[in-house]
Amino acid sequence: MQERATTTRTAILEAAARLFDEKGYAATSISEISALSGRTSGAVYFHYTSKENLARAVVEAHFAAWPPLIGGADSAGCPMERLVLLSFLVARAFRDDVVVRAGARLWSERKAIDAVLPVPFVGWIETVTALLRDARLRGDLSPGVDPQAAGRSVVCAFYGLHTVSDALDGRRRIEAHLVDLWHLLLPALQPGPDPAALLTRVRDRLPVARG
Amino acid sequence: MQERATTTRTAILEAAARLFDEKGYAATSISEISALSGRTSGAVYFHYTSKENLARAVVEAHFAAWPPLIGGADSAGCPMERLVLLSFLVARAFRDDVVVRAGARLWSERKAIDAVLPVPFVGWIETVTALLRDARLRGDLSPGVDPQAAGRSVVCAFYGLHTVSDALDGRRRIEAHLVDLWHLLLPALQPGPDPAALLTRVRDRLPVARG
Repeated sequence: MQERATTTRTAILEAAARLFDEKGYAATSISEISALSGRTSGAVYFHYTSKENLARAVVEAHFAAWPPLIGGADSAGCPMERLVLLSFLVARAFRDDVVVRAGARLWSERKAIDAVLPVPFVGWIETVTALLRDARLRGDLSPGVDPQAAGRSVVCAFYGLHTVSDALDGRRRIEAHLVDLWHLLLPALQPGPDPAALLTRVRDRLPVARG
Repeated sequence: MQERATTTRTAILEAAARLFDEKGYAATSISEISALSGRTSGAVYFHYTSKENLARAVVEAHFAAWPPLIGGADSAGCPMERLVLLSFLVARAFRDDVVVRAGARLWSERKAIDAVLPVPFVGWIETVTALLRDARLRGDLSPGVDPQAAGRSVVCAFYGLHTVSDALDGRRRIEAHLVDLWHLLLPALQPGPDPAALLTRVRDRLPVARG
């Protein structure tokens, strides 16, 4: 019984994410979510109470996607390599995971949604800053770079890349553009003769991309 | 008569921009635009036909703000200095000009607006790429930097900075964060012993900021 309820909740959440991602919050109705999930509207209301709550659940599921990714990048070598690997894993999640995409779209439409949504960026700025501080301890961060200021700038650059890539070609070329971004950022972050050599090492270790 | 029509059109456009910026497209009504502008709803419909058209006019006015800014930065010295100066002028326009802000918000809500809006980013990527190409001709661009790839990355970073700054503190600290971003990007873009010295030169030339 418990298991069936979980299956139902997941089916509803995924159908909602698919519709929010495609059509946005305002244009999506509970009856469409019900139809796509194969559950009754009554079941949708029973499990999520309202469209606002369903939107909040999708945004929360979006946020819940990050800790496992961050954990997965933990074994990737030095802090700077972990940072670069993480950026590719997140870019793929945005491209391939409908719940991640829907969460981002709902957040960008947050002013039209009558529910308190968690704020993005803050956690990412902390995560990137911590990685840059670890890099500093190992002597892997250029002396002039402040970890917190650079952490915020890296998160901004990465977020902007997603928005621009989404607007211009539906994220099809996101990985190539992420490579370009790191070619620009790594020489500023890392000392040494070939700061971008790290990028090749990380990309060799990435799973083969879909599509 | 012609002049009065122009005054009316401008008053309606500014009232619409103020409401779109504050409340978003969906939550703004023609009757509120009429009330705020001190013109009748009939005048609003006469001059702009529909809310969709009014939104399009605001987005077009947003785009029309850029050529004078780009022209204004033309006298600022070498291409790299023009690029940095331009970034500060655009950041201030976003912070202080309600039509610029409203245009950006409407564009982010574009999927909910039944009108074809011009696409941002493309023109900016071309503008920044052209400045970096000019810098290359003068030997002011690091040898490993590709102007087009770097141009796109700079635009992404800059756009992300705006979104994050808007979400976290209503753009209050946008100039300080822009300084941080250039401290990260300039060492990657420029060769030489102190690539960020240019930033000081440009900031000395900026008009004193409001507020």
